[in-house]
Amino acid sequence: TTTTTVKPPPVTLQQSPIINLDRGDPSVFEPYWRKNGGKCTITISGHDSLSYFSDPNSVCWYMEPELQEAIRRVHRVVGNAETEGCHVVAGTGSTVLFQAALYALSTSSSVAAEPMKVVCAAPYYSQYKEQVELLQSRLYEWGGDAETFDGSAAPFIEVVTSPNNPDGSLREAAVANKTGNGKLIHDLAYYWPNYTPITRPADYDIMLFTLTKCTGHAGSRIGWALVKDVEVAKKMTTFMQITTIGVSKDSQLRAAKILGVVAEDCEQHAAGAFGYAGNDADKTFFGESRKLMAERWEKLREAVKDKKDVFTLPKYPKRYCNFSGRYFQPAPAFGWLECKKGCDASALMKAHNVLTRGGETFGVSSRYTRISMISREEEFERFIERISGIQCVDEEDE
Amino acid sequence: TTTTTVKPPPVTLQQSPIINLDRGDPSVFEPYWRKNGGKCTITISGHDSLSYFSDPNSVCWYMEPELQEAIRRVHRVVGNAETEGCHVVAGTGSTVLFQAALYALSTSSSVAAEPMKVVCAAPYYSQYKEQVELLQSRLYEWGGDAETFDGSAAPFIEVVTSPNNPDGSLREAAVANKTGNGKLIHDLAYYWPNYTPITRPADYDIMLFTLTKCTGHAGSRIGWALVKDVEVAKKMTTFMQITTIGVSKDSQLRAAKILGVVAEDCEQHAAGAFGYAGNDADKTFFGESRKLMAERWEKLREAVKDKKDVFTLPKYPKRYCNFSGRYFQPAPAFGWLECKKGCDASALMKAHNVLTRGGETFGVSSRYTRISMISREEEFERFIERISGIQCVDEEDE
Repeated sequence: TTTTTVKPPPVTLQQSPIINLDRGDPSVFEPYWRKNGGKCTITISGHDSLSYFSDPNSVCWYMEPELQEAIRRVHRVVGNAETEGCHVVAGTGSTVLFQAALYALSTSSSVAAEPMKVVCAAPYYSQYKEQVELLQSRLYEWGGDAETFDGSAAPFIEVVTSPNNPDGSLREAAVANKTGNGKLIHDLAYYWPNYTPITRPADYDIMLFTLTKCTGHAGSRIGWALVKDVEVAKKMTTFMQITTIGVSKDSQLRAAKILGVVAEDCEQHAAGAFGYAGNDADKTFFGESRKLMAERWEKLREAVKDKKDVFTLPKYPKRYCNFSGRYFQPAPAFGWLECKKGCDASALMKAHNVLTRGGETFGVSSRYTRISMISREEEFERFIERISGIQCVDEEDE
Repeated sequence: TTTTTVKPPPVTLQQSPIINLDRGDPSVFEPYWRKNGGKCTITISGHDSLSYFSDPNSVCWYMEPELQEAIRRVHRVVGNAETEGCHVVAGTGSTVLFQAALYALSTSSSVAAEPMKVVCAAPYYSQYKEQVELLQSRLYEWGGDAETFDGSAAPFIEVVTSPNNPDGSLREAAVANKTGNGKLIHDLAYYWPNYTPITRPADYDIMLFTLTKCTGHAGSRIGWALVKDVEVAKKMTTFMQITTIGVSKDSQLRAAKILGVVAEDCEQHAAGAFGYAGNDADKTFFGESRKLMAERWEKLREAVKDKKDVFTLPKYPKRYCNFSGRYFQPAPAFGWLECKKGCDASALMKAHNVLTRGGETFGVSSRYTRISMISREEEFERFIERISGIQCVDEEDE
């Protein structure tokens, strides 16, 4: 049999600076905000936001009403989620809301005495497993790949990430809907028109979103959940109350401002708002970001085409985006690179001083690796240059 | 035997508005910040803080260097904690850092296979138990009152809260130091000169602090841990990474600004800074706050004195405060009221539309209840008035 291995790169490359594309740090949007961020500036005085409370009579008592309003507005104008009849729960990013949802779903009255299995179709976001296993809870435990999971035995939780992290695919529940035993969490962090065509408003029981991937403001750590069942929303709020007594109000008010500006921008320009299929949506934050992402993907596909004996990338069909009023191909936040000869793709990258996240972390083969497409411009450009020097050779050839 | 009961209050009182003194919402400091908060104003632009990262080469990579600097400075000038040789880990409040510390201590290599018991001398802060039990972890479990705990059997964690919440007492470890099996977490949220004389710099393995109780900015959700062991600090950071991918940068920068202003104020006025025992420290934020708290306590003691057949309050000895350069009596953030006849103190309060937190929540008798002393002025004043109408009668008398 032919075993493939990683060929050491030339000495010059070994000494080249490290390009870190492991994390999904959304610096790609920084130039946009440098140019257009003026309207988003906020000022916080010394006497603002002293209290824990924001809206004591609301289910999510620590959530600023302005933020809730801005969230509903941006979903309405983008058309990516149905908020009618949903409760909104704020989180320190959406990460913690995933944990809040696990808590809420695994402590509802109808659950079994055994820890509930949490599953997700592979390749799955590497952090779900880490979060589920962190405290060795008796409430829930990691159940691995949803595709190979038997959902008929006991209640379980399935996470559906769409578009998927790492591979950008659009997904529906793999197992939960079939058996009736499953409870669903939809992680829709990337369901925004900067990454993917908005084909319809998502309408699920628990939907998670985050400012990080929507506008790029990762440092503010603001996420939100749209939750249909009020009891689930209450339990998620209880989780937030016990673990962190709420979420930074400073960041909530900032997020409200940013989302408000983005929504207003969309209302002024987007096709949907005027009922014609113009392309004014290109001028919005999402339109500009989509162009940027599309350009990066074009460069990546070009670079990978030149190395077509080494790598392959997933193909995504064009779809009609209701928000943009045009057909386009998804341009996900991550590139999901497969090494054609089956060698360890992340090790291959690492040998060339490119840090990526290997397939095994996502529950699949090491022949895959995930590459951030949302890094700073110079890092991305340097990465594209570096691809040309990467090769993976059969040992037999040596 | 004489059983005591709660006498229904007159109809007029039943209809009086609810005074909520259950939560420790630090609104008491709002007037100070309204008057003096100008220097603390911050402005955040649309392009600020986009990244997850703040200081990638530091142990706590998501922590803003300005915040770390301000924290060390304020401890230096107040003299309430030794920061030399400590790592600083930031949290969304100190609540989550308590959980991060539990994770760090219960997953270190030397721990047993059994869940580690977490104990605290009663009366203990009601939230510790809730936090420990929330996810039914296999790493740790609630062990109750440290005073009755046998620490000789297995490794355990003792939380030491000083000044204590709810009763304001100054504390040292009850059991951990005796057996050598215990690991310590010191919750020093209230060890600031607004509440208690600063007798020496605290110097423990893990010390928790929070902006909420220091300056009153609860809404910003900023806490910090001073941690001696770098491995513990790393694990706590890992916990923060997995659960929330860091802490709001907007609030970190705001906290840095506020603590910087407070520290500068102290440097200019405090006795310690000039090496003489003047009382210029009275003009600082801590000095003004101390006066405010002392006035409230005087009013409370006065009101309770009039009801001395019903209630009693703990007595705190005067001590010399190195920061203020004067002797004073502690004026804790909570009043710990005991019903002399042994009736349910929180029910008694509730019958008079005053919401407080009953002793059973803190692991002791229901004859005790905790009353927030840091509410808004008008709520506090209304409460003081209402005390005069409260009585607890023996059933035999009726």
